[in-house]
Amino acid sequence: MTKESRIILGIDPGLANTGWGVISQDGSRLACLAYGCVSTPSDMPLEQRLAKIHEQIGAVAERYRPTCVGIETVWFGQNITAAFATGQARGAALVACAQAGLQVGEFSPKQIKLAVVGAGGADKTQVQYMVRQLLSLDAAPKPDHAADALAAAICYTTHQGFAGKAGLE
Amino acid sequence: MTKESRIILGIDPGLANTGWGVISQDGSRLACLAYGCVSTPSDMPLEQRLAKIHEQIGAVAERYRPTCVGIETVWFGQNITAAFATGQARGAALVACAQAGLQVGEFSPKQIKLAVVGAGGADKTQVQYMVRQLLSLDAAPKPDHAADALAAAICYTTHQGFAGKAGLE
Repeated sequence: MTKESRIILGIDPGLANTGWGVISQDGSRLACLAYGCVSTPSDMPLEQRLAKIHEQIGAVAERYRPTCVGIETVWFGQNITAAFATGQARGAALVACAQAGLQVGEFSPKQIKLAVVGAGGADKTQVQYMVRQLLSLDAAPKPDHAADALAAAICYTTHQGFAGKAGLE
Repeated sequence: MTKESRIILGIDPGLANTGWGVISQDGSRLACLAYGCVSTPSDMPLEQRLAKIHEQIGAVAERYRPTCVGIETVWFGQNITAAFATGQARGAALVACAQAGLQVGEFSPKQIKLAVVGAGGADKTQVQYMVRQLLSLDAAPKPDHAADALAAAICYTTHQGFAGKAGLE
């Protein structure tokens, strides 16, 4: 790839399902390299669920060698139990990102929708449709967690320019 | 140590301060081996703060070789921001515990107070005083996060019997 190319990871963190997606950016051209979802059963001990998320996100970073990652700053309304569970999964995933030396970009759901659809109030279907279009995919990525992860990676490209060693533009 | 001995880690998770404490249990006799606190500055990138917590809790487990860990199930009232931040720190710490192969016991603040003081509504000073007494320490452990971590380790001893290979009693 040229100097103006990079590999970007996207993560949609969750204790039961952590979506991930990897895209390449070559100038303004985006392409999907891979996506998937780390699922952990609810009857697995919590620490093992978190270790699985950490391990598999680390394996994705090892395999595809992204230099940066986009991750959603999740909004829970008043659901404190969900916030705590997702926070733990997000912590496990971010440890793997730090260990892989990735630049981390955190984006709100509104920022991600704006970047992908052009409207902060876009619904899930619109986001999935645009992820498919922007990455020239034959079908919408499944599960939704993977599509959301790819959307976070796309959002990274619109918010963070190509970085030199000194830091992000 | 005899068959009825073990080393127990306690963790009081937090993004800014994660307290830890290591105790030994020999029959009914408890002793403090070490305690401390992993502090991370708020101007450090989030993923690096989480990686530091993960790394240092891993180093404590490596050094003192506990077989189990007591950790608080934190209650936040309606403070969803605090729940999310602490959740992330707890996730980072629990990944380290899983990687060290520790049995994890999760306890509510009430369970910990009951185990240490004998009253679920005990205040912080009472907990610190009893941690000092139960572990025969010359002074109350500082910072408070370390005392809370030791309390979680003590709680583990009252909730989980000595474990065989097949699992906890």
